[in-house]
Amino acid sequence: MEFKSKIKTIEWQGEVSKVIDQTILPKEFKIADIKTAEEMYSAIKNMIVRGAPAIGIAGAHGVSLAAIELSKNISDKTEFLKKLREKANYIKSSRPTAVNLAWAVEKQMELASNLKGSIFQITEALKENGIKLENEDIEINKKLGDYGASVVPKGASILTHCNAGALATVGYGTALGVIRSAYAKDPSIKVFADETRPRLQGAKLTAWELTEDNIPVTLITDGMCSYFMSKGMIDMVVTGADRIAANGDTANKIGTYTVAIAAKYHNIPFYIAAPLSTIDISIKSGSEIPIEERNHEEVTHINGDLICPKNVNIINPSFDVTPNDLISGIITEKGILRPDFKISIQEAFNK
Amino acid sequence: MEFKSKIKTIEWQGEVSKVIDQTILPKEFKIADIKTAEEMYSAIKNMIVRGAPAIGIAGAHGVSLAAIELSKNISDKTEFLKKLREKANYIKSSRPTAVNLAWAVEKQMELASNLKGSIFQITEALKENGIKLENEDIEINKKLGDYGASVVPKGASILTHCNAGALATVGYGTALGVIRSAYAKDPSIKVFADETRPRLQGAKLTAWELTEDNIPVTLITDGMCSYFMSKGMIDMVVTGADRIAANGDTANKIGTYTVAIAAKYHNIPFYIAAPLSTIDISIKSGSEIPIEERNHEEVTHINGDLICPKNVNIINPSFDVTPNDLISGIITEKGILRPDFKISIQEAFNK
Repeated sequence: MEFKSKIKTIEWQGEVSKVIDQTILPKEFKIADIKTAEEMYSAIKNMIVRGAPAIGIAGAHGVSLAAIELSKNISDKTEFLKKLREKANYIKSSRPTAVNLAWAVEKQMELASNLKGSIFQITEALKENGIKLENEDIEINKKLGDYGASVVPKGASILTHCNAGALATVGYGTALGVIRSAYAKDPSIKVFADETRPRLQGAKLTAWELTEDNIPVTLITDGMCSYFMSKGMIDMVVTGADRIAANGDTANKIGTYTVAIAAKYHNIPFYIAAPLSTIDISIKSGSEIPIEERNHEEVTHINGDLICPKNVNIINPSFDVTPNDLISGIITEKGILRPDFKISIQEAFNK
Repeated sequence: MEFKSKIKTIEWQGEVSKVIDQTILPKEFKIADIKTAEEMYSAIKNMIVRGAPAIGIAGAHGVSLAAIELSKNISDKTEFLKKLREKANYIKSSRPTAVNLAWAVEKQMELASNLKGSIFQITEALKENGIKLENEDIEINKKLGDYGASVVPKGASILTHCNAGALATVGYGTALGVIRSAYAKDPSIKVFADETRPRLQGAKLTAWELTEDNIPVTLITDGMCSYFMSKGMIDMVVTGADRIAANGDTANKIGTYTVAIAAKYHNIPFYIAAPLSTIDISIKSGSEIPIEERNHEEVTHINGDLICPKNVNIINPSFDVTPNDLISGIITEKGILRPDFKISIQEAFNK
């Protein structure tokens, strides 16, 4: 039985990329029309669209938008490709941690560079390929969701951090994809969602999309996870990832590492759910992953309201790295990778 | 050199208990005049005054206020003491977890029951004793602060959770008392403060009182602690306590247990700072400590603003219990207690 989710986070229509504006959820549901590469850069940077797989697709659409724009003014193909490369690099620079963004942008650039056609044909091919990547993302999520569901115990309570759901992808989710597939088989499972300060993606996005899909969810503050683990109320943890190194070290939303340590302490399995496009085999370990620092207002203000004295110091790393020895398995579209990850990741890429 | 803090959280003046209203800090600084036992019950329940030692003194003042009120209408001493006992029990029921509240209320009731004087004399004695407990609290904090300062490494970065500061006591602090004493000796120390959701006491109170006292403080979200620990940016942790069992298991603000697990994982010393009145030797272990559940709005709303979908499930335990094996030492006015806590706690009480 397949789980049907109503949410389509990003979708190419005609000459426009349509994205759900995630900065105003759950108060308001609105679709933003993204029409230029510059608008896409801002949408990614300001987290109108966010989540590693979703910003991958957004990056791919951004290249399509750039091609449409450039094709109107440039007739020389070499010049076109040079300018497209500049725009591609610009889009990639919107956020540094998730590898999917660079991965999808480069997929588009590879296509553009290798195609033996006109500017028009290249532009059409980029648009089509953006849609293809979009559809593949959902297919990949469903596959990894089904693999993940196989390790969810009957009636399990599953903790997740941040939002690795339909809203972080095109439309099914990675961590929440596992939960959707598990729920389709066993409607007695339950979810605990960390609210995930500073941006509250757990409260605003995960709690929203699970209640939309009628999957039972309990919202907790980030510090509470160990309490519920110690009470035997959490059976497994599954989160998404922004970048996974060749040894399995995983960068994900700040706070994930704390949850992983707490899970280890309580002997609770801790899984990462992510497509292979999130794995960066070019880096050996997590120490090589750049950690984005975001603005201080994310910590000092909530919904525009100051919560602390004005003159306090702030450091706001947006991600942390969970070392591979805290991870029970990485759930991918090629199956569940197990330690030693150096070997299992290599094998998955060779499949 | 003694550290001078400007903050006096609770103070008896004439016939009134004056408390800093902690529900509106740091936006507004206002003193609330508490004039009846009922007003004190509400002030404790609604956290206008909070923190284990401070609500102890608030409870003692509450008994004084009850005595003043009853003495106006009752002339029979037995009847007076019976009604005073009812009011005392009522005040004690305002919050269940911190043992200091019951401890201080019972100190007052012991005095009232044993005094061989008139209703007037009992009432006067209760007022005086309330002031005495107030002054003792500051003295005790300074003593434990000085003991604690002895284990703070030169130039250390110290993480604290919630607020165990001047605002949680009468005026110097337990965990922040240690920090004040350490800072007086070594102004190169620094503080990291967890914001401490759901009520944000770290952001609203700890960050406020440390910046007021010019002690350098960096505010972080609760999930970030492990990240900074892994970067070698935190040298020790010190928090307060709401109730400590005879074996050293410690109930403190929700999230403390998660920090303690993270500290253990990184081999960072984790200290509790609390007066002996926080230790409940009548209970063997933490499993016997009642954990208060507070209203769901603390999680679903921040500064009155809804942050999640309306129909999400909430569980809101206000405290958790850190098992004794995660605690490096308990800093008290009788010195630093070390494992085996069963023995060291007993010895401290016999001193």
